[in-house]
Amino acid sequence: MKNIKLIIEYDGTNYVGWQKQKNGLSVSEVIEKAIFEVTKQSIELIGSGRTDAGVHARGQVANFLIETKIQPERLKDAINSKLPTDITIVKSIEVDREFHSRYNSKGKWYSYTIFNRLEPSPFYNKYSAHIKYNLDLDKMKSAAQYLIGTHDFAAFRSEGSSVKTTIRTIYSIDITKIGDIIRLDYKGDGFLYNMVRIITGTLIDVGRGKKSTMDIPKILESKDRRLAGFTAPACGLCLEEVYY
Amino acid sequence: MKNIKLIIEYDGTNYVGWQKQKNGLSVSEVIEKAIFEVTKQSIELIGSGRTDAGVHARGQVANFLIETKIQPERLKDAINSKLPTDITIVKSIEVDREFHSRYNSKGKWYSYTIFNRLEPSPFYNKYSAHIKYNLDLDKMKSAAQYLIGTHDFAAFRSEGSSVKTTIRTIYSIDITKIGDIIRLDYKGDGFLYNMVRIITGTLIDVGRGKKSTMDIPKILESKDRRLAGFTAPACGLCLEEVYY
Repeated sequence: MKNIKLIIEYDGTNYVGWQKQKNGLSVSEVIEKAIFEVTKQSIELIGSGRTDAGVHARGQVANFLIETKIQPERLKDAINSKLPTDITIVKSIEVDREFHSRYNSKGKWYSYTIFNRLEPSPFYNKYSAHIKYNLDLDKMKSAAQYLIGTHDFAAFRSEGSSVKTTIRTIYSIDITKIGDIIRLDYKGDGFLYNMVRIITGTLIDVGRGKKSTMDIPKILESKDRRLAGFTAPACGLCLEEVYY
Repeated sequence: MKNIKLIIEYDGTNYVGWQKQKNGLSVSEVIEKAIFEVTKQSIELIGSGRTDAGVHARGQVANFLIETKIQPERLKDAINSKLPTDITIVKSIEVDREFHSRYNSKGKWYSYTIFNRLEPSPFYNKYSAHIKYNLDLDKMKSAAQYLIGTHDFAAFRSEGSSVKTTIRTIYSIDITKIGDIIRLDYKGDGFLYNMVRIITGTLIDVGRGKKSTMDIPKILESKDRRLAGFTAPACGLCLEEVYY
């Protein structure tokens, strides 16, 4: 029995998310099916975590146990040949039998992309949130500083998944602009349900002047979701890397 | 009567090209239809030049004559509201009555994008050519130098459109690489049919060692299409800007 770790890129536009759902096709089941076509074995793919419908990934990690004579490094090419063009395995390696992509995750890096001009973009509409307002990046950067570190992020999460604690540590939030593209890069030890999207929505509110920088510590302290900003759309979110 | 100049972005994936065709939907007819919906007038849209099926644009230029009370600068928003998400008008302005987007064009800037790693990309598959081979960028850059300037590019064009002369001037070819993305930027006074794609195919052949740098002047001199490289796929090509 080999334990195979995969690094996966996907365009989430046409999927209900990573995890199997009754209402449509999920990324994980498409990959499981491709692995079955290659190996004739039904495996259970363990992802590092869920991504919601429309969310993308350039560094999702998953692992599965399998009995196969195919070289682990070559498995990716065999699986890719059975995958649709919107999902690609970029790496497949054998790892220690104990490795578990979800339990062993020590942190994650997510990016959020904003397309910031009046007219929508034919190229970025599926990969960004289209924000027409002028955004004050300096204010957004100042606001983000209050979120870095270890905090109770109860105000910045959606209900719907049970977690032991709402305390998380954000290592960094980098905000950069190139042309009409604003990119927010979040690195942390873990993120609550919708946390990156709600923080992004709140920072957008700060950038357009609907909220002030000084509102951020108050929202954190309140632990009240209703005080934070809107949940930025799923299509702007991308899981860049999982840390182990 | 006003002469309106448009600057247009489009994802060419789902179109038969800029120009009307019998076998499917063209970009220009979709825009003409949107203009009709806004103004109730049938206009003829004059493009700076054709783009083939699957070719993209971030700076296509077109103009049309119309009698309307809508402010020229506001026309874009009205038209955009009637357009599908893969076409966007980024600018609409009134220009001199004599302005003709094709006849007055003094030059063009095209980009060609190569996605260069073994595995295909979920994000770039519709916007690049996927080349799996290692490409020697230094050799490609040296080869490109022979193409800069005024030459007879008869060897680097497809038959199919009648032109007075096959002599063109290329101002610059810039080749840059960021991560797995190689981008070739071509600026010139005009390009023959498929010229950018055939030059790109030839430079790819040089990059992977199938042709040598010194083959380029020989191919130019031969004026023989059969000696040049393959026609790189349409989806990697993007019309960035038209010069006037």
